Amino acid sequence: MKRIALALATTTLLGGPALGQRTAPAPVKVDPAVGKLRDKALDDHIAYDIVEGLTTEIGPRPEGSDPQARARAWGVARLKALGFRNVRVETYTLPVWERGVELAEVVSPFPQKLRLAALGNAGATPPAGLTAPVVFFETFNDLLNAAPGSLAGKIAFVSNSMQPTQDGSSYGSQGIARFAGPNVAATKGAAAIVIRSIGTDHGRGPHTGSTNFAPGVTPIPAAALSVADAENLERMVKRGKPVTLHLTLTPRQIGTRESGNVIAEVPGTDPNAGIVLIGGHLDSWDLGTGAIDDASGIGITTAAAKYLMEAGRHRRTIRVVWFGDEEMGGIGGAAYARAHANERHATAGESDFGADRVWRFETNLPDSARAVADRLAVALAPLGIVRGTGVGGDGTDVGPVLRTGVAAIDLNQDGTRYFDYHHTPEDTLALIDPVQLRQNVAAWTAMLAVVADAPEEIGPVTPKG
Amino acid sequence: MKRIALALATTTLLGGPALGQRTAPAPVKVDPAVGKLRDKALDDHIAYDIVEGLTTEIGPRPEGSDPQARARAWGVARLKALGFRNVRVETYTLPVWERGVELAEVVSPFPQKLRLAALGNAGATPPAGLTAPVVFFETFNDLLNAAPGSLAGKIAFVSNSMQPTQDGSSYGSQGIARFAGPNVAATKGAAAIVIRSIGTDHGRGPHTGSTNFAPGVTPIPAAALSVADAENLERMVKRGKPVTLHLTLTPRQIGTRESGNVIAEVPGTDPNAGIVLIGGHLDSWDLGTGAIDDASGIGITTAAAKYLMEAGRHRRTIRVVWFGDEEMGGIGGAAYARAHANERHATAGESDFGADRVWRFETNLPDSARAVADRLAVALAPLGIVRGTGVGGDGTDVGPVLRTGVAAIDLNQDGTRYFDYHHTPEDTLALIDPVQLRQNVAAWTAMLAVVADAPEEIGPVTPKG
Repeated sequence: MKRIALALATTTLLGGPALGQRTAPAPVKVDPAVGKLRDKALDDHIAYDIVEGLTTEIGPRPEGSDPQARARAWGVARLKALGFRNVRVETYTLPVWERGVELAEVVSPFPQKLRLAALGNAGATPPAGLTAPVVFFETFNDLLNAAPGSLAGKIAFVSNSMQPTQDGSSYGSQGIARFAGPNVAATKGAAAIVIRSIGTDHGRGPHTGSTNFAPGVTPIPAAALSVADAENLERMVKRGKPVTLHLTLTPRQIGTRESGNVIAEVPGTDPNAGIVLIGGHLDSWDLGTGAIDDASGIGITTAAAKYLMEAGRHRRTIRVVWFGDEEMGGIGGAAYARAHANERHATAGESDFGADRVWRFETNLPDSARAVADRLAVALAPLGIVRGTGVGGDGTDVGPVLRTGVAAIDLNQDGTRYFDYHHTPEDTLALIDPVQLRQNVAAWTAMLAVVADAPEEIGPVTPKG
Repeated sequence: MKRIALALATTTLLGGPALGQRTAPAPVKVDPAVGKLRDKALDDHIAYDIVEGLTTEIGPRPEGSDPQARARAWGVARLKALGFRNVRVETYTLPVWERGVELAEVVSPFPQKLRLAALGNAGATPPAGLTAPVVFFETFNDLLNAAPGSLAGKIAFVSNSMQPTQDGSSYGSQGIARFAGPNVAATKGAAAIVIRSIGTDHGRGPHTGSTNFAPGVTPIPAAALSVADAENLERMVKRGKPVTLHLTLTPRQIGTRESGNVIAEVPGTDPNAGIVLIGGHLDSWDLGTGAIDDASGIGITTAAAKYLMEAGRHRRTIRVVWFGDEEMGGIGGAAYARAHANERHATAGESDFGADRVWRFETNLPDSARAVADRLAVALAPLGIVRGTGVGGDGTDVGPVLRTGVAAIDLNQDGTRYFDYHHTPEDTLALIDPVQLRQNVAAWTAMLAVVADAPEEIGPVTPKG
């Protein structure tokens, strides 16, 4: 918004045209083949088939699990059947955390069970659980302000609530209670922490997700209450009587396991033009079947690459990666970046924000490739996609590649309802709207058609801050 | 609809006016005090406070449980605090069924866990579970057509799907898979049965509810898969390979327990005019906190009676009953009818279909009291409530009283979203829309104001078939 305000102020000071009288931009020429390919992709069924297949034939695909290994084999077979080249699994190892028993019960003053889910990397209670008084924090900042040692022997309860946003920005500001809350509570002596789920619904499905403890801090039991249960516990607390919880959480670190990224390519004609890297992630949380997080991202990017393959020769190689492990800190993306540090990438982008429509695109293309972004704007506009005013470069899986100076092209999905379901048992095929899914495929197809054949050199760029 | 069609046909045959030219009805006079009381009730907070209190301070209230006993004590205290007279608990005993472990897992061909909930009265698997092939039935009628003995050693899976209806009529036609499916499967030799939840959502919260086995039929394990899980299992079945399930369900009958109806009154001036009986039920399923089923019905009817109390003297005694046990077959209502068989009731009606707005009313008032229904129509119309073309007389709790010839007044709530949440973990305070809840209170207040003071004699009537 700062950029817009500045532009308007400058215009007014110089006596230039007001917003309604802006001069027309220079015309942009886009190869008509791009629009044809884009519109053909609106009839896509490949993306839906992949989401349907992964959720039905595999189901939940937690990091380092057997189902995830089956999913890699499933992916290799599917990608080969679709005609991709150089299909393979690139393996790596990772530490694996596994969910155990999870039970919570208000002991007093209003005995009843609460629904919750442990956070990834959380510590465990004794097998029989622990009973402790609750200390209530309305916001994460309140927890930060708690005196050192003040939580000794107590269960911290942070109930900060999250609002839906189209761009998902509330995940950063509200998600901090999950990302950092357990570590903060541990350093202040808490026996355990429960947070209100980082979610925008009011239902009973808890939102899990990973958390992290600083080196030297012993992980404490940490879990997210469903939003409905957090609201209930908050009402109990606000009645003014001391509230005691009994909590049983028995997750554990089970050691190192092998995992891997599934990779497929559509070769281009110019090996020196840089790779166009796209993809989503194959792992999912264990509670749902990982439809919108992130079978859809895999389906969308794979389908788009397939349409480029069918269209015939193009300049740049398109590489589709089904990143193996995203949820616990982006281990798959980091492994990919290490393995491919010596290759030239032209652009990178991932689809990992559900399956609702793309509403905006943002890039950090250098001025020398500004014409590429202009053509993207024209090619994407018929899908109802606007050109953002910010700088692209988000994504956990492509992040490590982007940070080496590769240009980012972000196709931003509408996140308004994403956090109603994110990391909950509700993440199933039922959430997929086939019409919006196809719009995604068309957007990625148009992007690939523009970028893979762009005659301009792309990059290196300055990575987003 | 048959009645409407007949009326129109008759009119046309006799050369009477077409629908658009109907003659105006005779004017109806309603005491202006009725409208004032109704509109005051639109500012109600009593109903919400009761729902909030029961869901927060008690939570789930399964039949024969300790929380349900606490809820009776809570109710007595609340009703006395509100100023009601003759507040008491009328006890009775009932057999109690209790949920145990419930786990389901597809063993092959696509291993993954499924979410389900045992049905009330269901039998148990061995403690370690049972593994058996699935026999798929798309509809309940398909199950009925299965050959005797054809299910021996197998798990029947009935996946009939339910559509939302405003009047809830789909519960009867689709609910039969739950009410009768387990008994049918048992008689055909099935080792167990799973059904698609009787629900109109596509989520992961299974819809429980009671089922029944005929005398002499040994209860088999019986459970409802969440709709999302049933859809997933159906997709697996339709891929054509044999599907094997592992099922662990350990519910049990725990014997006889004491329970009771909580009763309160607003005395009228004419003890011979008959009691106006209203209420909802205090028990709830164990998965949610019983907000829309049926703390709301208790709150609505209690609040309405309170407004009549505040308004001062009226002819008939209003009796509010928080029926103790509805979910497993209406034991509370039956106990009430037995205990009060020698009292004269003028009318009876219950609120047990959620907390969304009242859209229609129906009665079976005799012709001698037709003027009462006419005044009800006028008094309820400003709330957007139409006069139905059917015959009133529904309700599990008031059913036994109605069957003795007491007149029914049904205030029908909009059930369009009711079966998204009914009998699931999602039945919590979050579902309560305060504006619609208040419309309910206003409707019941207007009804009571008209009926409690009606000079006409009401009843006996011919019970609905």
